[in-house]
Amino acid sequence: MTAITARIAARALLPGARLPSVRAQAKAMAVSVSTVVEAYERLAAEGAIRSRPGSGFYVSGAAVPLALAEIGPKREREIDPLWISRQSLEAGEEVLKPGCGWLPASWMHEAGLRRGLRALARAETATITDYATPLGLPALRRLLARRMAACGIEAGPGQIMLTDCGTQAIDLICRFLLEPGDTVLLDDPCYFNFHALLKAHRAKVVGVPYTPSGPDVDAFEAALAAHSPRLYITNSAIHNPTGAVLSPAVAHRLLTLAERAGLVVVEDDIFADFEPAPAPRLAAFDGLTRVIHIGSFSKTLSASVRCGYIAAPREWIDSLADLKIATSFGGGRLAADLLLAALTDGGYRKHMEAVRRRLAAALDETVGRLGALGITPWLLPRAGMFLWCRLPDGVDAARLARACLQEGVVLAPGNAFSQSQTASGFLRFNVAQSTDARIFDVIGRALRGGTSAPPAGRQSDRPASRAISPR
Amino acid sequence: MTAITARIAARALLPGARLPSVRAQAKAMAVSVSTVVEAYERLAAEGAIRSRPGSGFYVSGAAVPLALAEIGPKREREIDPLWISRQSLEAGEEVLKPGCGWLPASWMHEAGLRRGLRALARAETATITDYATPLGLPALRRLLARRMAACGIEAGPGQIMLTDCGTQAIDLICRFLLEPGDTVLLDDPCYFNFHALLKAHRAKVVGVPYTPSGPDVDAFEAALAAHSPRLYITNSAIHNPTGAVLSPAVAHRLLTLAERAGLVVVEDDIFADFEPAPAPRLAAFDGLTRVIHIGSFSKTLSASVRCGYIAAPREWIDSLADLKIATSFGGGRLAADLLLAALTDGGYRKHMEAVRRRLAAALDETVGRLGALGITPWLLPRAGMFLWCRLPDGVDAARLARACLQEGVVLAPGNAFSQSQTASGFLRFNVAQSTDARIFDVIGRALRGGTSAPPAGRQSDRPASRAISPR
Repeated sequence: MTAITARIAARALLPGARLPSVRAQAKAMAVSVSTVVEAYERLAAEGAIRSRPGSGFYVSGAAVPLALAEIGPKREREIDPLWISRQSLEAGEEVLKPGCGWLPASWMHEAGLRRGLRALARAETATITDYATPLGLPALRRLLARRMAACGIEAGPGQIMLTDCGTQAIDLICRFLLEPGDTVLLDDPCYFNFHALLKAHRAKVVGVPYTPSGPDVDAFEAALAAHSPRLYITNSAIHNPTGAVLSPAVAHRLLTLAERAGLVVVEDDIFADFEPAPAPRLAAFDGLTRVIHIGSFSKTLSASVRCGYIAAPREWIDSLADLKIATSFGGGRLAADLLLAALTDGGYRKHMEAVRRRLAAALDETVGRLGALGITPWLLPRAGMFLWCRLPDGVDAARLARACLQEGVVLAPGNAFSQSQTASGFLRFNVAQSTDARIFDVIGRALRGGTSAPPAGRQSDRPASRAISPR
Repeated sequence: MTAITARIAARALLPGARLPSVRAQAKAMAVSVSTVVEAYERLAAEGAIRSRPGSGFYVSGAAVPLALAEIGPKREREIDPLWISRQSLEAGEEVLKPGCGWLPASWMHEAGLRRGLRALARAETATITDYATPLGLPALRRLLARRMAACGIEAGPGQIMLTDCGTQAIDLICRFLLEPGDTVLLDDPCYFNFHALLKAHRAKVVGVPYTPSGPDVDAFEAALAAHSPRLYITNSAIHNPTGAVLSPAVAHRLLTLAERAGLVVVEDDIFADFEPAPAPRLAAFDGLTRVIHIGSFSKTLSASVRCGYIAAPREWIDSLADLKIATSFGGGRLAADLLLAALTDGGYRKHMEAVRRRLAAALDETVGRLGALGITPWLLPRAGMFLWCRLPDGVDAARLARACLQEGVVLAPGNAFSQSQTASGFLRFNVAQSTDARIFDVIGRALRGGTSAPPAGRQSDRPASRAISPR
């Protein structure tokens, strides 16, 4: 304690500086680890140093940066949610991305967007130069209300607020309802960015096993009793990563339990338009009293045009709008106007019909190709782009992902989606990103343990015969 | 305690429900206020109820919404930052907004935006459909690096990250560096949304008086010693609301103090392009070691196209990008591409020259018109849209704002900008939004105490003679 205090006083350790790890300090001073632990704890109690969970101890008096990568148990890079997101976001066009969470650019509603952009070039001045109103473009909110009504969700346009994207929608709700240390229930497996988002809120995460008809209700009830969570965040309609659909019976039991426990439910509905017919929505059962419904068009229309939405209990909308203004000052008009144009020009419905047909064909083909490698679907999804697959016995998904990445193929290993880390034998495939036969060559070689072939990702090395999948 | 515990057990008070106020409870149970205070505190210590600062007590077991409006001391509506933002964002075109913080739509770079939109309608598919890379469009980051170099700030494109807007840039930095309860220094007066943003982070705010050459350095030093703040957030170049410019001497002393205290400085430079020649930038003196430089083009190009940026110490960029991915999943390409097109098509420089000339003329005229009402500038700004004005002795700005709002004129009263609430005799005018002579008629009448004239805001009541200012 004296040594560290002296170094702080002499400014050899500046405010905000990170102290050596307990182990390193013990070695440097030739004392036991427990001596250092006690010294650090006493110094922290005195306020001379501060601990940052998962990150270490820092000299007081300056900000300690929040490094999400350092919070929580260390995971292999291949199953780190942030690392996987970066791989997909940074990958050039030469990389194959069957693990990626969105459609290829050429599958999006390009024609509608181009028409919308041309219309915007002629729009009235304020549309292209001014801030949006706090809740966002009224005409888009009215359209969203009609779309929700078609799924049985009653939400007036005054209960709907536009956001910059679906993730920002969930983030605002977390800001609104969570305090650091609060517990949140997630499906296990679930969309991996939920884990990253909740780290940023310093929330505790409890996973509930997901079954082919929704979360395991008994486990859900037990988690409510054991952890008093504030929030449950889930995908409705088409679950990410499994492609499963909530059954009405599970929805009903879940909402009864949530009501009894005072639990708020966030239903993330960004895959809505992939469904041929709407599956049960929690918000429809609940009438938006404790369910918050969110969505966006990043997966069907454009990820480049940022716009999402929140439909929430009416008495929460004003506070959510205040939070949006405080943290991102409203929003712009352009993205909402462009989305509205692309959604209403008549081409969107046809576009989505074509996407659904194309996805169904890609699903069949992917299932066949994976089957030939001994990789089998956990469930054959009704719709959507995701296929949650079991690997042959004994194959570790993270190790497989590492081998394939070296050959220019980005996979999504199961444990990236799993709070309990029980999905090491699973991979999530995006069937729309799996149409290139080279992907299965690379996986096949990696499964057989051979990775010496020329990387699939390098154009110059690519043999002409495997250039492009025949479909 | 027994009574409340019984009501919770009987589910007459559900998880998350707000308890009656101490005063109301005391009255209802015919006991003293201090008895209720003690009961509430004991129940909170037992974990049966939870307190939410500024908001009251809630039954445990459910989330308690964060209502920014209920945090901190209650202020009159007219000086509440969120209320003022909403007034400006929601105001229709019939309302006059001399208190608004941005240029009228017709002053923005409309021609460049329309050209950019037409070009985007022909852009490659991924530009209009795909996610951006984690740091954002490389060509725009290279342009930003060149622009910063022109102000003496050395920042490589790898030190620059694009965000959805300037406010989101500051918000990300606060997420990165602040923990609840941390103290932040702000100028007094300062941009009012900083107060709202810091409420959302549950930070304590300490104000430092602002002088015509920057913050009062002695007060700054005293605040560092007394409060150990983590961050100082300020505007460089043109200060909002005063229009003042930082002097090199103040910049140097400030950075020396910041370095000694381990303080991080956020320099919000969104008014950069209004300057005829660059004023000192803290980031230029400091070399981006403890100064984070942020900006956007919402004030000069378009507020409808959302895009801001952060230039930060290189070792922080990865963690900031992780936070951005976790909370808003990257970003879109469209806004950045459109901004880049509008910034580089050759018209932007001419546009800004015209805006500066127009602002100078509007400044002269506004000063003259205000002078006739006995309202005098605290400082005659070199550039920008803001004029910080002293009202005649004894006039309260909030009261004046209330009277003028009834006549369709939105003002920005001084205390909305002031942590110490010592600016009740000030108003901020936006000279670009003050070209309509009716504004001064309304203020004149309100100053004389007469508010019986027909509302200026209603088209049908508007006498032809005062229809539109001749300029």
